[in-house]
Amino acid sequence: MTKLNENFLKLQANYLFIDIANKVKAFTSNHPNIDIIRMGIGDVTRPLPPAVVEGMKNAADEMKEEKTFRGYGPEQGYPFLQEAIIKNDYLSRNINILPEELFINDGAKSDTGNIGDIFSIDNTICVTDPIYPVYIDSNVMCGRAGNLTPNGWSNIVYVPCNSENHFVPELPHQHVDIIYLCYPNNPTGTVLTRSQLNEWVKYALDNGSIILYDSAYEAFICEDDVPHSIYEIEGARHCAIEFRSFSKTAGFTGVRCGYTVIPNELVLQSSDNQSIRLNRLWARRQGTKYNGTSYITQRAAEAIYSPQGQQEIKANIDYYMRNAEIMRNSLIKCGLEVIGGVNAPYIWVKTPDGMSSWEFFDRLLQEVHIVCTPGVGFGPSGEGYIRFTAFGTREQSIEAMYRISTWI
Amino acid sequence: MTKLNENFLKLQANYLFIDIANKVKAFTSNHPNIDIIRMGIGDVTRPLPPAVVEGMKNAADEMKEEKTFRGYGPEQGYPFLQEAIIKNDYLSRNINILPEELFINDGAKSDTGNIGDIFSIDNTICVTDPIYPVYIDSNVMCGRAGNLTPNGWSNIVYVPCNSENHFVPELPHQHVDIIYLCYPNNPTGTVLTRSQLNEWVKYALDNGSIILYDSAYEAFICEDDVPHSIYEIEGARHCAIEFRSFSKTAGFTGVRCGYTVIPNELVLQSSDNQSIRLNRLWARRQGTKYNGTSYITQRAAEAIYSPQGQQEIKANIDYYMRNAEIMRNSLIKCGLEVIGGVNAPYIWVKTPDGMSSWEFFDRLLQEVHIVCTPGVGFGPSGEGYIRFTAFGTREQSIEAMYRISTWI
Repeated sequence: MTKLNENFLKLQANYLFIDIANKVKAFTSNHPNIDIIRMGIGDVTRPLPPAVVEGMKNAADEMKEEKTFRGYGPEQGYPFLQEAIIKNDYLSRNINILPEELFINDGAKSDTGNIGDIFSIDNTICVTDPIYPVYIDSNVMCGRAGNLTPNGWSNIVYVPCNSENHFVPELPHQHVDIIYLCYPNNPTGTVLTRSQLNEWVKYALDNGSIILYDSAYEAFICEDDVPHSIYEIEGARHCAIEFRSFSKTAGFTGVRCGYTVIPNELVLQSSDNQSIRLNRLWARRQGTKYNGTSYITQRAAEAIYSPQGQQEIKANIDYYMRNAEIMRNSLIKCGLEVIGGVNAPYIWVKTPDGMSSWEFFDRLLQEVHIVCTPGVGFGPSGEGYIRFTAFGTREQSIEAMYRISTWI
Repeated sequence: MTKLNENFLKLQANYLFIDIANKVKAFTSNHPNIDIIRMGIGDVTRPLPPAVVEGMKNAADEMKEEKTFRGYGPEQGYPFLQEAIIKNDYLSRNINILPEELFINDGAKSDTGNIGDIFSIDNTICVTDPIYPVYIDSNVMCGRAGNLTPNGWSNIVYVPCNSENHFVPELPHQHVDIIYLCYPNNPTGTVLTRSQLNEWVKYALDNGSIILYDSAYEAFICEDDVPHSIYEIEGARHCAIEFRSFSKTAGFTGVRCGYTVIPNELVLQSSDNQSIRLNRLWARRQGTKYNGTSYITQRAAEAIYSPQGQQEIKANIDYYMRNAEIMRNSLIKCGLEVIGGVNAPYIWVKTPDGMSSWEFFDRLLQEVHIVCTPGVGFGPSGEGYIRFTAFGTREQSIEAMYRISTWI
């Protein structure tokens, strides 16, 4: 009899966004005429920049002609896109990345989920709490998370981020091997300053740990002292993998493209003392279980880096960040405790009167018809908070704030 | 110190197609003016059908407008594509597939590589030999393949396909849990008849085994008694997962789209006797580590099923199969033993004079400037064979055959 991977059975039965969807569905079927404002899932609403669509259509036309048709692409991505990324996202910040260190993918979720393939099951994981659930679930599935206990997964060290520490995670008090950091943070919208991130890099170097740095929201950073890339920090090339995504930067949630950087200095020792470059392991993993990103998509991503593309994505980012500003100001005016929304499109709100996350979620849905994300869905330290996204339209964002301010 | 997944170190150092690429590179740098014909890697050469490009460009235009923009799509794929697949690829053969059983992906390689995630490491694997290397390598990476011995991987049962058994694999003589079958076969171009496939389904049902059925080349089947889908066989819904791809059917090697079917009847027992539907485990795996296929790509795939799309892909398939026919006839006329090429775009050729695969590869490259794939790269039973693909242009196919016939 074929045997299951029983680690899957340890996963909690429902996924956060499915629970939310079910509650919203139940509400709308009872109240079909009520206009609901969805500020829950972090999906964008601005259409694709015209430069991107142009790049995509030109590529589609190339694929129609025998002479310009392209089949399988280079395994780590086309040089035209690798070069654009290296030049615009790294060289512009005095970071040197080589093409062999850069992997184009179909979005950060795939790579943050699959990266665990190259590490032993026998590593201790550290996550900030609250956190994007994929980091934990992907470790549960392969058995690395251990077992679920009342204090969380037995092999995961949770570093709380809450009002008491001003949402700045303390370094772990015990040894950890693999550290997930997502900054600007999903769900709290907070950032680490250069010196705060420096502490984590120092910890990783001192402890032989690896940092998995998800900077999917770096394009939303507005303040100066906030690093966009972990490689702005000295020593990070020896201890960090960086994940980036075009999903939020350029409206690619439905287009699917991102990239991962694994520097050549990132080397681990095997048990028989070979030095193994992690980017070669990852290349082998991807060469076996992935077949590259669509040529058309890669041309679309390239177009982001044209002068017109840059202008257009900046306009979209400004649009969302103006939403965030409106929302922040309005919620603060309502007397709520508000975190994030300055360098990230997420706003993290403490529930009033000590309500639980789901209680406040239910009241927002039932009474003012707004969908948020209950903070507890992102981990135990998220209890008593909810997340709003600034990815709605301007009209929705203003209307939602109006509803809340006249209700609370 | 963070620990590697040391299973990766068991993988043989080089990948077949990289070895080939290096040999070709060495030859061309010494002989820059010689015209090489590449019949090695199975990549298509016909451009995308106009209907597909049209679908793609229309979708790109939708993404430019706020009202028609689409962000994250449904996790298993858009209903418009699911419905087109179910109607055209299954209902047309009297097979009922439900949308919840169907998973749109970015190509069969990802899913055939990742499907192992949902199974325990502790399962015995069976492969026909020779075979597409991804099936084996993905099992090596997670430790399921065991260790490499002179007879192959210790936990993999190899079922030889060679002249002695007319390339029809015998059922395994020992119990196996997971069976990879690829029909029409890559690399041999052979097929299983309905009654031969029926034997495998019967074996799986009798032994509680799962068949992973890769039918990426089903569109090339020309003969009547050859099943296109394993679900044409009674009982297969209880024991088989089917993988399909648009890569070869519609020239999508650079576009990336395929699909996987996991029927509701495919249920395994957990160690505490729960009945677990495999498609729910896979949904959870994909929901955690994958974020769906590009909307534009899904519209492109949908266009394959329009009357115009069907006509255009048929023309391309006929083109390649005419190449195959020309190649088969020519090679047979040269006195070579030729397999495949009737229901598949691959031609499997026994090397003359007992040469090894790589010896014949080298001679073809050096003397007539043709690149093939050495059969031994697909497994021990491939030794003494080479593979040609029929995916070249007509001109190349004819020219290659001319070179061989005037040389051999």
